[in-house]
Parts: sequence; C-alpha cells; structure tokens
Amino acid sequence: MSYDYRLVVACPDQVGIVAKVSAFIAAHSGSIIEASQHSDLTSESFFMRYEVRFEQPQSQAQLSEAFRPIAESFEMEWRWQDTLQKRRVAILVSRQSHCLVDLLYRWATNELNCEIACVIANHEDLRSLVEWHGLEYHYIPVTAAERDSAFTRIEQIIEARAVDTIVLARYMQILPSWFCERYQGRTINIHHSFLPSFAGARPYHQAFERGVKLIGATCHYVTDELDAGPIIEQDIQRVTHCHTPDDLVRLGSDVEKSVLARGVRWHLQDRILIQGNKTVVFA
Amino acid sequence: MSYDYRLVVACPDQVGIVAKVSAFIAAHSGSIIEASQHSDLTSESFFMRYEVRFEQPQSQAQLSEAFRPIAESFEMEWRWQDTLQKRRVAILVSRQSHCLVDLLYRWATNELNCEIACVIANHEDLRSLVEWHGLEYHYIPVTAAERDSAFTRIEQIIEARAVDTIVLARYMQILPSWFCERYQGRTINIHHSFLPSFAGARPYHQAFERGVKLIGATCHYVTDELDAGPIIEQDIQRVTHCHTPDDLVRLGSDVEKSVLARGVRWHLQDRILIQGNKTVVFA
Amino acid sequence: MSYDYRLVVACPDQVGIVAKVSAFIAAHSGSIIEASQHSDLTSESFFMRYEVRFEQPQSQAQLSEAFRPIAESFEMEWRWQDTLQKRRVAILVSRQSHCLVDLLYRWATNELNCEIACVIANHEDLRSLVEWHGLEYHYIPVTAAERDSAFTRIEQIIEARAVDTIVLARYMQILPSWFCERYQGRTINIHHSFLPSFAGARPYHQAFERGVKLIGATCHYVTDELDAGPIIEQDIQRVTHCHTPDDLVRLGSDVEKSVLARGVRWHLQDRILIQGNKTVVFA
Amino acid sequence: MSYDYRLVVACPDQVGIVAKVSAFIAAHSGSIIEASQHSDLTSESFFMRYEVRFEQPQSQAQLSEAFRPIAESFEMEWRWQDTLQKRRVAILVSRQSHCLVDLLYRWATNELNCEIACVIANHEDLRSLVEWHGLEYHYIPVTAAERDSAFTRIEQIIEARAVDTIVLARYMQILPSWFCERYQGRTINIHHSFLPSFAGARPYHQAFERGVKLIGATCHYVTDELDAGPIIEQDIQRVTHCHTPDDLVRLGSDVEKSVLARGVRWHLQDRILIQGNKTVVFA
Repeated sequence: MSYDYRLVVACPDQVGIVAKVSAFIAAHSGSIIEASQHSDLTSESFFMRYEVRFEQPQSQAQLSEAFRPIAESFEMEWRWQDTLQKRRVAILVSRQSHCLVDLLYRWATNELNCEIACVIANHEDLRSLVEWHGLEYHYIPVTAAERDSAFTRIEQIIEARAVDTIVLARYMQILPSWFCERYQGRTINIHHSFLPSFAGARPYHQAFERGVKLIGATCHYVTDELDAGPIIEQDIQRVTHCHTPDDLVRLGSDVEKSVLARGVRWHLQDRILIQGNKTVVFA
Repeated sequence: MSYDYRLVVACPDQVGIVAKVSAFIAAHSGSIIEASQHSDLTSESFFMRYEVRFEQPQSQAQLSEAFRPIAESFEMEWRWQDTLQKRRVAILVSRQSHCLVDLLYRWATNELNCEIACVIANHEDLRSLVEWHGLEYHYIPVTAAERDSAFTRIEQIIEARAVDTIVLARYMQILPSWFCERYQGRTINIHHSFLPSFAGARPYHQAFERGVKLIGATCHYVTDELDAGPIIEQDIQRVTHCHTPDDLVRLGSDVEKSVLARGVRWHLQDRILIQGNKTVVFA
Repeated sequence: MSYDYRLVVACPDQVGIVAKVSAFIAAHSGSIIEASQHSDLTSESFFMRYEVRFEQPQSQAQLSEAFRPIAESFEMEWRWQDTLQKRRVAILVSRQSHCLVDLLYRWATNELNCEIACVIANHEDLRSLVEWHGLEYHYIPVTAAERDSAFTRIEQIIEARAVDTIVLARYMQILPSWFCERYQGRTINIHHSFLPSFAGARPYHQAFERGVKLIGATCHYVTDELDAGPIIEQDIQRVTHCHTPDDLVRLGSDVEKSVLARGVRWHLQDRILIQGNKTVVFA
Repeated sequence: MSYDYRLVVACPDQVGIVAKVSAFIAAHSGSIIEASQHSDLTSESFFMRYEVRFEQPQSQAQLSEAFRPIAESFEMEWRWQDTLQKRRVAILVSRQSHCLVDLLYRWATNELNCEIACVIANHEDLRSLVEWHGLEYHYIPVTAAERDSAFTRIEQIIEARAVDTIVLARYMQILPSWFCERYQGRTINIHHSFLPSFAGARPYHQAFERGVKLIGATCHYVTDELDAGPIIEQDIQRVTHCHTPDDLVRLGSDVEKSVLARGVRWHLQDRILIQGNKTVVFA
C-alpha cells in the first residue's frame, strides 16, 4: 500500500529550495515519483510540482504543518494535495453538447479524476443526457436584464455543493466581474479560436472571413477581461478554401473538446501554476 | 516527348464550364494530368487549375488564341502557362539568413522551378552567401527619409531583370503603397506569427508576453495594409513555459522557412488563385 | 430545390474522359459542385468523383442508364449515388466503448450521414449505451471453436437488415476469410498502431517496448490478411519516456476514434476508391 | 559572471537521491537552472539531468571528485559536464546534401553548440560545400570488399581529431560491428522512415507500395543491428495518393533534417540518456 501526494510550490528563486524540500521528503520516507521544476530567469521565480509516494499514511494537515517552516522561509505559495481527495466540478453549458459529452465520457471512464457535482445550463436541451449519467441538472436561464440574479443563483448552487472547479463547456454567457473574481484560477473556459485571434463572438466566421489556413481552440482561465485570461492549452486544425463556415464549426468542435479535456485534466492533477497572465504547465 | 501546360481559370460559376474546357483540351489531344476545381457557393465563383500534357508542342500564343472564345463566353480570368518557362524571382532580404538559405538550397536542388534574377538587401551581411551561389547581390539601404527613392531603385533593378515574382524573405522594411500595388499578387511575404495574431513588430515577443502555447508563421501576398493580405499558408510549432523569447525566435525560424518555401513553390506552380482577400490553394 | 448526386469512376486513363463526362452532366443541366480527379501515371489509371447538383429530380436508374454508354466506352467501374439515400451500417464491438461512443455521437448529430442498422457485440457490456440510443444490440459470443457459426449468425443479421457497410470499432475478433471476402471493400477496421508497424496483438505494448516517440492509429479496409488491407487514414500522437503502456492506451484511444470517424465519414461520402492494396481518398 | 554545468545521472531508484544531490549543489552555492527527473517504475531506475549555475568557477575535476562519494553510494552512472567545453563532431555523408546543409547552417548560426572536427564522405560530391565552410573533407570510398579497411581509416581520422560524436547524415553505408560497438551511444543516424516500419533500403518506396498516409523519419543511436537502435526522435509528414515516390523523397527530406537536427542538439546538450534499447529524452 502506498499514499500519493502532490506538492505544488511557487516562490522567489534562490539557492537551496530543492535541497530543503527534498530533504524534507526524504526525512518523511517519501519517494519522488514525478518531479517538475521551472526557474523563470526574468522574474526570478521558481515553480515546482512533485508527486510523492509515502509508505505510511500521512494526514494532509500534519504534512502541511511540518512543511510550514520551510514554506515560510522561502516565501512559498504552496499546497500538499492528497491524490485520493477528488476535486468537485461544476460544468456550465448552453445548447451545444460536444464538449459536455466528451467530458462526461472521460469522467465516466476515470480519465478525469474528479466528482461532477452538477451541470448548470441556460437551456433545457441537455437535461436527459446529463440525467442519464445520474447527475444533477440545473436549468438557470440568463437574460440580459437578470444576469446578475442568475449568477447569484448559480453561486448558491456551487457553494451548496462545495464545488471547487468550474468548467465552461461552450457556455455562451459572459460572466459578471464579481463571479470571475470569486472563482479566479478555478474557472476554465474553452474558446473556439486560436487566441488572441478572433476573441469574442462567432470566431469561426471571423476565421472564415479572414481566410486563415488553420483554425484553433484555446483553453484558458477566466478573468474579468473577455477571452484574455491565462492560456492553458491550444491546438489547431488545418483547413482549406473548400471549407465552409459550417465545416469550420464541425472540424473545430473536435479540437475544442480535446483541448478542453487536456486543460481540465491538468488542472485536476495540479499541473498548472498561474504566473500573472500566463501559465506554467507541467504536462 | 511531351509538353506540359497549366491552365488556370477563375470565373462566375455556371453550367458547362468543365464540359467546354475539357472538350477543348481533348480536341487538342491533351491529357489532363492533374485537375483541381473549386466552386465557391457563396460568391458563385468557379476556380480551376488543370495540368495538361500534349503529345505535340504547342505555342503558348496559339493555344491562348484558340482558347479565347471559350474564355470570353464564360468571362474568365485565365492563363495558359508553359511549364518549361521559368518564372524570374527577386528575393529581398535584410540581415537574417534562414529563409534565404532555405530558398537558395531549394532552388539549387530544383525543388523551386524558377530563375533567381537577383537578391536585393538593405544590409551587406548576406553578400558572400549569395555570390557563392553565382547570383547578383544588390545592396540598397533604406532609411526613413529616403524610403521612396530606395524603392524606386529596387523597382528599376526588378524591371531591368524582368522579374515576375518578389519574395520578401524576412525583409524588415515596410513597402510603399505604390510598390505594393504595382506588384500586387506577385509579392510574397513571410510574417513570423500566426496571423491575424501579432501583426506588426516583434511578434515572438508579443507571443511570449501573451503566453500562447503555439507559435506560428504566415505566408501571404503583400497588400497596402501591413500583414493583412491574402493568406497563402500557415503553420505552427508547440512551445511551453520553458521557452524564452530567444527560443521562440529559434523554433519559429524553422516554421517560417518551411511555410515560405511552400508558399513560393505553390505560387511558382500556379497553384494559388486570389479571391478578394483570400486564396484558393490547389496544393 | 436541388438534387445532389455523386458520380464515382475508376477506369484506364485516356484522352477525353473528362470531356465526355462533363458534357453528359451539362446536357442534363447538372452543376459540378465538387470535383476530384486523379491520374495514376504508373498504372495509367484514372479516378474521379464528382458531386453534381441537378435542378430537376433524377431517377438513379435513368441517370445510370443514360450514362452507361459512356461508362462502357471507357471501361469504367462507376456508380451514380443519390446523396439522399443513406447507407446502412452495422457496428461490431467488443468491450471497449470509445470508438462506439464517438461514432454514435457523430451519427446522432448528423455528422455521419447513415443509418445505423444495428450494433453486434461479442460481450454484453455496451448494451445499455446502444439501447439508450434506440438501436438494436445483438450479443453474439465468439469462441475459437464456434467462430464460423458465430459469423454465420452475424451474416444473417447483416443480410436481414440490408447492411451496406460494416465498421469494426475495436472489435477484437479475427474475421473468417469467407466473411472478409463477402464484405470486401465495405468492412472498415481501426487498428491501434501506425501500420505497418505493430500489426497483430497488443500494439501499444509493442510500441512501448520498442521505445517509439510517436504512437498512431490506422483505419483500413479489411482483407483476408490481418491488418494488411488498403489504408484509408492514419494519424499519430507524440509520446515520451514518461508514458506507461496505460498512458499509450489512453492517448491512443483519442487518435483511434478520430481516425476511424474520418475513415467512416469518407466511406459514406464515396470519397474512397480502392486501387489494389491502396486507396485514393478524395478528402 | 556565471559558470554553467550539467549533471547527468542514471541509477537504481531509492529514497533520498534528490535530497543528497541538491544538498551537494546548494553546499557549492549552485543554482539549479533547469531540472529534469524520471523514475521508471518498472525497472526501478532513476534518471536526472540538472543544469547548475555556479557563481564561482569550478574545475570539472574537483567538482567530480567532490561528488564521487554521493555517486558511489547510489551506484550512479554520472557525469558533470562543463557547458563551455564543446563536443567535437564528425559528420559522415554520402551524396545527398540536405541533412548536411542543415547541420552546417545550424552549426554556423550557433544553434548547435559543438565543433565540427571533419566531414567524411564516400563520394566527392559535397567537398566544395564543406570546404566553403572552412571544414576538413575526407573522401574515403567504401567498397564491399574493402569495407573494413575503409572504416579503419575513418577510425584513424576520428581518433586523430578527438571526435566525440559521430553523425550519419544520410550516410548510406552499413557500419561494421566493431565500429558500432566502439562508438556506441555516440553515433547518431537518421533513418528515412517511421521505424520500426520500413527498416532497411528504400523506405520511401516501401512506404509508397504499402500506401501509407503518413511518412516519417527516425533519429536513433546506431547499434550493431540495422535500424534497430534506441530511438531518439521521430516525426511525420502527411501524404496522399497524389504523391509519387519522388514526392515522398522530397517531402521526407524536410522531416529528416529537422528530426536529425533535434536529435543532435539534444545529444550535444546531454539531454538523452540511454536505457537499454530505449531513450529518456529530457527535451
């Protein structure tokens, strides 16, 4: 039997961090299963993620308490995460199903290590699909006039279900600022273009008009500024003059779902560290 | 012995074009070696490119004269191109060599079917490389104050050498409007970003600041509007948080040269038809 | 209102085919919406696929009858296909669901233009998924001793439901020769390697042992020789020393389903012509 | 001023390696600029590569001597490499120039941090190119009868020039066993297929015959068994039924040179650790 934890650290770079951290782990008889580090020479910042296997069960609280003096001496932002503790995810959707279907499939087959607390939608279209999976479906329409109250209801649902991470799976609504801020660093969106190109509405039609030869999708953390948050992952698909806007939508939807799935998976595995408006991704 | 020609056509779409054109070719005992067609349903335009092999030598003038009635009846823009007649290319460069070296290599190994009439540069750095290949090198400095007169000199060189196609191989100067217009549809640029993202100066640094996960390059025809002409080809390269701006420059330069080479090759083979601000590429 | 047909032709190459065919289409007031042609210079074979739009409804029988003299004069293998007539598909599966789920999703969202006549499985695992989609599920176990009789039952089901195309969506059984021959050119398999590497059993484990840096998947027509039929489509996924065989299985499954979906889509759109042990794919 | 070293380690996995190594580095006031680690859970092996920056100059000998007790206690294979000490490379070529031209360009622009000790060829074709770069060119013909004596001469040249790494840049000769063994782990080959497919002669023609939809190239360490050594890097290029064997050769040559350049670059940066017949690549 073994007990796996993840240690995630961001701090100012200086000599001796790895030495101290690894000595701590060795002193607790931990093996480093996977190690990722990054020194940003410009900002003199240091980032690390360790997967650590202990032979003995560890209490997350005790581990954290023991680690605190090291963390404080290096001014770390840090977290020990028990890998057995599953994150609780809310998925927000509109009418389009491709990203939701893909996420549910990956969740059902244990590719995404999380609990899906609920699905929240501003349309009724996807209810039967969600309920067939034995999941809660909340229909909360969003109108321009009542946008704020709608998101207050969403907030209540999210809080009541102890949701940790929010995934916007082609949820076509703009979130209010207060909502973005409250769930900053925990709200993941998929945008159907290769950002920063074609932010905003109807990106495939913009791409078609511009005559680009590659279309793309971008998974990013949501911030108050539309489609401008830290980018997690991007990918592209080749297109030609033969493709209509409908073809771009069809071809793009495959890219969207795979890019979103990778982003969510990495987030759930604590592989993403946010650094200003950028991300360090230990994929 | 056989004689290969290319027929390139753009015209309003209507019933019977292919029938008439292919009957013409059959009547001249021509075989269609390669055929590409595209019907744009939105604009109701029709594009075609045929590679035709004749058993008997054809005069380009006679072939064109015989074809003219068909062309006129369908309001075609059209061209019969003798594949043995090589295009004459001028390459404009600045200090960076990677695209130039690549183009010269592909030219020397007959991958690019053209004559290189001359290389024109606003620095002396690449002279020995060019002259080693037995090619003319013209050093024409460009200053803000004398930009117009510099391009007048460039125009003179180009005209004197009967240049057909101009390739900007990381030529870091903005062309005057009159020059863009004069050589419209025959001037090919490589921009070191995935357009429309990061037009203008220092795109790799812009990309680094934005934290994108893919960088790209775009080959396009030059128009009066900077980095906004019809896109010919694009490609990308994956990058991570580990890469510095210098790494992006290094990784990007490989993408730039291959994207530019593909664009130039297709142009020389009459595979690109311009439609407004977009291209039809029969690759 | 318009009426779309596909014409698919393979014949010995010679002068005048396009002229005759396009004259026929023009004479029937048909517009060529999409045209693809290929001349194989080695075998002197000619392949074409036209999408033709008629203003008037056409009977497939009359169209074919009228076309027959042309077809015979050029020794064509040929077919006029009414695009409204949906192909009938049987999907064969074992226990793994990823390809089946993907195909059913694309079918349900009209991305695959076909009817799914039934799903046939040698296990019961996927019954509820299939029946939720309102489709027939046939459980036909296959044992070494009774393989032939099992496939006789499968053949009966397929014939009774007028199945046109058989898709092996990770169906882990080897088909008897007589079955392969009977449905030759209409049975599509997905193999989970980049063929011809790693044919046969457990390709991901073979790939892991060999230490390749890319894994792949191959969609091909089934022939009597295992994993050796005409290749329709292939794609790959980058892997590293970090990936375990389980990771390869997970990453590969995404490639498998997209490669299979593309192959099936092209088959249903008559975009694939078989030439010996190779394919011409007008994608 | 700073002094950069690389530490490369392979050893049986156990608790405390990172702690001991990083404590050693911290005690020498070294900063870990880049860290890569890999635990192979199957073989219970551990691999690491650190880039370490010291404020004070270090003698490689003294550094190694001080590190020896740690190395021995963990049964390490290990090396401290001074990054200022350039590797000495011999490039072996035949008639084809594309890989050689690419390597020389990357060397001339400092993308490959090495000295090129000499180029050795079994033809005279590439002499002027090599000598234009100011490099030695040795013409050593290889005949079946005199293969061994030819390689004895090659060995003499290599030894006299203190060559560390041998790059076979489309060198079309099979190396004798004794030569493979002598330079094992230091001889890099580019094979023009996606191994293990199409090992041996004329892989593009094999690929054409099989009708694959992707062609590839493989960079690997040479072992006694032809095209079967540890794979370093692979990449692919999409092809279609339109491409002739000549097209495959042309398209493939671009893949070959980029794959080889990556492999050589990583080797020169000590990013590749050989594990049996596989590689750990800390790219």
